[in-house]
Amino acid sequence: MDHLGTDFLSELVGTALLVLLGTGVVANVALTKSKGFNGGTLMVNIGWGLAVFAGVIVSYASGAHLNPAVTLGLWANGATHFGGANTQVDVNALSILAFIAAQLIGAIIGAVFTWLAYKQHFDEEPEPANKLGVFSTGPSIRSYGWNLVTEIIGTFVLVFVVIGFSRNSGGGGLDALAALPVALLVIGIGASLGGPTGYAINPARDLGPRIAHFLLPIKGKGSSDWSYSWVPVVGPIIGGILAGLLAIPLLPILT
Amino acid sequence: MDHLGTDFLSELVGTALLVLLGTGVVANVALTKSKGFNGGTLMVNIGWGLAVFAGVIVSYASGAHLNPAVTLGLWANGATHFGGANTQVDVNALSILAFIAAQLIGAIIGAVFTWLAYKQHFDEEPEPANKLGVFSTGPSIRSYGWNLVTEIIGTFVLVFVVIGFSRNSGGGGLDALAALPVALLVIGIGASLGGPTGYAINPARDLGPRIAHFLLPIKGKGSSDWSYSWVPVVGPIIGGILAGLLAIPLLPILT
Amino acid sequence: MDHLGTDFLSELVGTALLVLLGTGVVANVALTKSKGFNGGTLMVNIGWGLAVFAGVIVSYASGAHLNPAVTLGLWANGATHFGGANTQVDVNALSILAFIAAQLIGAIIGAVFTWLAYKQHFDEEPEPANKLGVFSTGPSIRSYGWNLVTEIIGTFVLVFVVIGFSRNSGGGGLDALAALPVALLVIGIGASLGGPTGYAINPARDLGPRIAHFLLPIKGKGSSDWSYSWVPVVGPIIGGILAGLLAIPLLPILT
Amino acid sequence: MDHLGTDFLSELVGTALLVLLGTGVVANVALTKSKGFNGGTLMVNIGWGLAVFAGVIVSYASGAHLNPAVTLGLWANGATHFGGANTQVDVNALSILAFIAAQLIGAIIGAVFTWLAYKQHFDEEPEPANKLGVFSTGPSIRSYGWNLVTEIIGTFVLVFVVIGFSRNSGGGGLDALAALPVALLVIGIGASLGGPTGYAINPARDLGPRIAHFLLPIKGKGSSDWSYSWVPVVGPIIGGILAGLLAIPLLPILT
Repeated sequence: MDHLGTDFLSELVGTALLVLLGTGVVANVALTKSKGFNGGTLMVNIGWGLAVFAGVIVSYASGAHLNPAVTLGLWANGATHFGGANTQVDVNALSILAFIAAQLIGAIIGAVFTWLAYKQHFDEEPEPANKLGVFSTGPSIRSYGWNLVTEIIGTFVLVFVVIGFSRNSGGGGLDALAALPVALLVIGIGASLGGPTGYAINPARDLGPRIAHFLLPIKGKGSSDWSYSWVPVVGPIIGGILAGLLAIPLLPILT
Repeated sequence: MDHLGTDFLSELVGTALLVLLGTGVVANVALTKSKGFNGGTLMVNIGWGLAVFAGVIVSYASGAHLNPAVTLGLWANGATHFGGANTQVDVNALSILAFIAAQLIGAIIGAVFTWLAYKQHFDEEPEPANKLGVFSTGPSIRSYGWNLVTEIIGTFVLVFVVIGFSRNSGGGGLDALAALPVALLVIGIGASLGGPTGYAINPARDLGPRIAHFLLPIKGKGSSDWSYSWVPVVGPIIGGILAGLLAIPLLPILT
Repeated sequence: MDHLGTDFLSELVGTALLVLLGTGVVANVALTKSKGFNGGTLMVNIGWGLAVFAGVIVSYASGAHLNPAVTLGLWANGATHFGGANTQVDVNALSILAFIAAQLIGAIIGAVFTWLAYKQHFDEEPEPANKLGVFSTGPSIRSYGWNLVTEIIGTFVLVFVVIGFSRNSGGGGLDALAALPVALLVIGIGASLGGPTGYAINPARDLGPRIAHFLLPIKGKGSSDWSYSWVPVVGPIIGGILAGLLAIPLLPILT
Repeated sequence: MDHLGTDFLSELVGTALLVLLGTGVVANVALTKSKGFNGGTLMVNIGWGLAVFAGVIVSYASGAHLNPAVTLGLWANGATHFGGANTQVDVNALSILAFIAAQLIGAIIGAVFTWLAYKQHFDEEPEPANKLGVFSTGPSIRSYGWNLVTEIIGTFVLVFVVIGFSRNSGGGGLDALAALPVALLVIGIGASLGGPTGYAINPARDLGPRIAHFLLPIKGKGSSDWSYSWVPVVGPIIGGILAGLLAIPLLPILT
């Protein structure tokens, strides 16, 4: 239980940092008068990848899931423990819920700080859709079915390769470079599969900031687009669980 | 034989992931209404490099060739075994064919999932050439002889440096960062030698998706350009074998 | 005392290199006729990150703070020693002042060499604001309060994650890749939180070059904008100290 | 003498690969109809960095100088041996000349292959200056004195930090990631100090391809600009030797 408290804090802090830097890079390229305005898709992808990098660094204690799709994917893959060597908790309904709750709360907090860091640029931005776009994803071509397919495929790749990492990393100590592979993976998924939906691939990353957008007194904000909000929650959950299940036969021997 | 089955699966899964993310980044920059539209050549190169990164991670079991030119280059270089420590197979006609078949089948599967992830963007894309360009390479200036030269040189660099890696990596365990050097190499070859032909440097990467393009019911697709299709197969095979042979005298002592 | 002299030199040399390369990349994209003119925000962020990389490499002796906010953040976090294994000094008022003085002097020297490397481009640049922009940061939307908030948040992330690194790196030897994580972190902070103020996140990096701008005989230079100069000094100091303090409860167990 | 032969081959092969990929990326962004046309300065910098990465990988046997400024800088720094553990040679006039000769010959060979890979694009390129620009550097604002200063500063940074690497890398084995730091350094120097002269920072990299440009039957080529050719030779030599000398007092303790 003590360890679960530590892991809860670790997931919360890590996801807050992830979302602060991740939504921050969108603010930088999307909001009027920002120095990175129109900085391009590659910059956004790299920004999200390095956001994951920073988030992972500060949440080694809990194994740095930072994403309900990872937590559920590891569960589906048959994990019996979450967390680092000194902070292990059993995998059960309580620990899964604790991890997901921490991720969601952390994501809300991270989004609040992005709003504070870019406060004036939100105030001067004329277009409500650009403001929501900082917080949450939306599809280029709206079609819930196909948007869901894209999110499932993208999250499948994320969780499948993350399980590939963990099969190969031994049980040794973590150093600062241990956060690099997942950061590169997130950059790659964004560059390759982010075109149609903006790649949530993480329910907390999308829903947390959407809640923040809904609650915060953002000047001239428009709709929080709740009608789309279930897609970047359900798609990543399906994709993550599928990856966890399919990794059992498809990643059989990787010692 | 058991190990060959494992290696077959490993090559298939790894190449599928490579091609999914690799053709995905082209879809992102090339197809109408995609968020990464016109994202630039560097983004495409980085996307392909990280596609290789992800593919290598999940196919450590087979040594992560993911490319017939690598398989044949290692054979030409005198390799006696393929695969990881626990999954070794002898190098012979059967294992070479199994590796290449797995790579080709994986490449077809990867391309199918790119089509699914970008289904709506394929449907709305007006230009058939852009659709084929997601799947397979084509030359900027068509001239089979010179296009072949470019593919030979590019693949030579790939396989020659990959052999350089393997000479220096000892026989130790692989971790997630072991996939980084080849990813960087692929980014570099793309940036430097991708200008004339779009750098297939991998027969499976080009032929597999071309077969998928031919078979899939893609709306408004045009020709699969079979008249060019032999260049990105023959060129990489020549380049890979040349690299394997020339690495013997030119990479003599690197311990 | 001998060790403090070594650490002083180490911080001075490292910060000079950091500022030379960091202000250099701004010169490259901002000054007329430079080959990197209009190279984009991502290039500037990457340039600053690799500037930190080079600076850290040459100042391992002192632990490579290169930033008063890092020095003060580590102090606030309870550090009892600065510097490498063979060059340790006690943390006290003298060593803190010595580190900060070395950083500031190094930053001035680095900026002088950027001016020399780009001498002709400074001479031919018609816009005084572009010249100052090479040396020091300025806000997109001037508002001292909100600019301060942005600098506090950005520096908080820097120092908080740096403390995360150090918790996880053991006490082992440093190699050249040990400088990579902080370089990636700086790229990420720039991409994500650099939009409003250009991310000083380092009092020496901003004040040192501003002093150089004030003193150097730069052709057609304008104001050194002293009215803003306190923001990128005070903001990073607050952010760094906050990170050092909050890391105590929020990064509790990371072994 | 045997070892000197091995090191000669190693430097030749490594520099050929470096120059093939380095001049290749310029061809990709500069020549008409190339897929990377107008790919931007960052892509060029990354391309050169990864060119160094590939070149270093295949020349571990000789210590991967690939640059007369590095060879002379290490000599000035007091090195007594060049090469890897099994291929050591004494530092003397013969070995220095052998290293430099190998670098120059390798650079010529690399440039020839770039011409072959981009043969059709050279043929169709209307502007002679763009063709020379693929091979060799030229200044944005011609002024031999200031151009020399820029090359001295850039090469100083390269060699100074390379010496910093070598002080910290222990004597252990090299793996594929050991080539990454110098690649990142080259990207950083290019982004930061490449604006005025295009950063030769390597006499062989500039003179070898210029000789190739002079000798090859390139269609519609113009002048090889011999009047500027001494600057990217003399500047890097001065910068490299200065770095070797100043690293003695300025990088004193880095164990």
